Amino acid sequence: MADEQRFLDHLRSRATHEAARGLLDDVALLTVGNARLILTSDTIVEGVHYLPGDPPQDIGWKLAAVNLSDLAAKGAQPLACLLNYSLSGAAEWDAAFLDGLHAALERYGMPLIGGDTVKMPAGSARSYSLTAIGEATGDVPTRAGARAGHRLYVTGPVGDAGAGLDLLRCDAGAQGPLIDAYRRPRPRIAEGVLLAPLASAMMDLSDGLLIDAARMARASGVAIRIDHIPLSPALEQARGASLATRIAAAQAGDDYELLFVLPPDVTPPVHAIPVGEVAEGAGLSLRIDGAPVPLPDRLGWQHG
Amino acid sequence: MADEQRFLDHLRSRATHEAARGLLDDVALLTVGNARLILTSDTIVEGVHYLPGDPPQDIGWKLAAVNLSDLAAKGAQPLACLLNYSLSGAAEWDAAFLDGLHAALERYGMPLIGGDTVKMPAGSARSYSLTAIGEATGDVPTRAGARAGHRLYVTGPVGDAGAGLDLLRCDAGAQGPLIDAYRRPRPRIAEGVLLAPLASAMMDLSDGLLIDAARMARASGVAIRIDHIPLSPALEQARGASLATRIAAAQAGDDYELLFVLPPDVTPPVHAIPVGEVAEGAGLSLRIDGAPVPLPDRLGWQHG
Repeated sequence: MADEQRFLDHLRSRATHEAARGLLDDVALLTVGNARLILTSDTIVEGVHYLPGDPPQDIGWKLAAVNLSDLAAKGAQPLACLLNYSLSGAAEWDAAFLDGLHAALERYGMPLIGGDTVKMPAGSARSYSLTAIGEATGDVPTRAGARAGHRLYVTGPVGDAGAGLDLLRCDAGAQGPLIDAYRRPRPRIAEGVLLAPLASAMMDLSDGLLIDAARMARASGVAIRIDHIPLSPALEQARGASLATRIAAAQAGDDYELLFVLPPDVTPPVHAIPVGEVAEGAGLSLRIDGAPVPLPDRLGWQHG
Repeated sequence: MADEQRFLDHLRSRATHEAARGLLDDVALLTVGNARLILTSDTIVEGVHYLPGDPPQDIGWKLAAVNLSDLAAKGAQPLACLLNYSLSGAAEWDAAFLDGLHAALERYGMPLIGGDTVKMPAGSARSYSLTAIGEATGDVPTRAGARAGHRLYVTGPVGDAGAGLDLLRCDAGAQGPLIDAYRRPRPRIAEGVLLAPLASAMMDLSDGLLIDAARMARASGVAIRIDHIPLSPALEQARGASLATRIAAAQAGDDYELLFVLPPDVTPPVHAIPVGEVAEGAGLSLRIDGAPVPLPDRLGWQHG
């Protein structure tokens, strides 16, 4: 953690170009001629971001999906991507990875146009990077624009992917909608495009509702009060809807829903679940069924 | 080799977007609005593309330089880049890597605007990817445009970097201009911009003069006759200028000079050394001091 923070601080001190946005956002915004490009790149590492036994199709899908989700949070239309690939040494595995990657790229219209392929030394964990390029469709929301009096929404329930990961840890062969939510996240590209011109702040939920909302509050200089943690029917069926289950769902990562803020007079143009309010002040607070609930020590997934 | 080829064939069968150029070029060309973007991404792997004991500043420099060289070969002006970085576990090493990377990025005007940082599991080789974005300044040459009767040039002597690598293999502490050529290649950005409107074919020398010229001949459907292998004073001083030395220099990779073809009535607008002729037919041939010389079995660096 300390090393990564030090490295990121060093990077930020050098990344002074305005397109870098201080490396404080999930994406870069680069204007070239009349084109406003949104750029993002994510790396996934064997044994860190996925398990060696995970199905290669799902790893490929997820690599595309996490990058697409970063574009979605900016209301960007995907244009193209480049892949940095480490050969597995097993042609079937590589082919299955590409099948899953391409399934996601086709579904969301982001053609693969280049990249690089390498071999790792024997015994090394492999890693894959995808760099996604999108085009801004209008305003480009950030996580820093939330205003007091505005309302906080998500595009879907939270916690399914985290519950899926828990199930897989106990039984690598587990199946069902919670497993699908973990392995095949669905980036909210269409929703992002519709929300971007309206949202005062928007980001994707990658690390968990609580921690991501806390980051939005900090970046925006406001307080955020979460008053509802929406669960899917599949999650309620598996775990019930107790307070503990709800809090666990709000701590869980990998949802890839959009978290966004709208002025009170704006009706969401997409399926949206109200989850809280923005107020003057600072920090995150939580109320469930009208009663204040202390925040858990760990708000969500912390990198590093 | 077979695995990589199979994977690349699979990739190509899916990369049908015109911007991908069939993944047969070193770069992608993506038009967005009135912007013509040149995109490239290279990955370097510890123990494969560099040695664990190499100075981190030089590894960072080289990662930037190899990507910049791909832009140079298209006459592109660098715009920005994204870095995928594996933390080393040693903050000083990471800082030195960034210093070298930034030195190259500043020199060639390619700001770092984003990327991702990960930790690898203990014992894994690390890898670094850089995705570079440039803007086409006019015509975008490929390796496929060489025409019979045109002349072949390079922007500088060949073989220095290969000789530097040989020296380092014998003495990891070796220094001098050949070592610098290997560790701190200088991408020919300014030359590329001036040559792009004039060159009928252009590429950068990454794998060696012979193999890269053979690739240009194949892509263009012509024969290429190399009649001169230019050596630097430093290389001649270290190794003499025998035929064997010349051939070794033309087999050596990592030069990152530009290899380009001009019509016979065009005078090169940059420092350029004539190295051969384009003719009807197919394949590569070699004449030194006016006499035919058989091609070596290994033309240059083969990936995989």
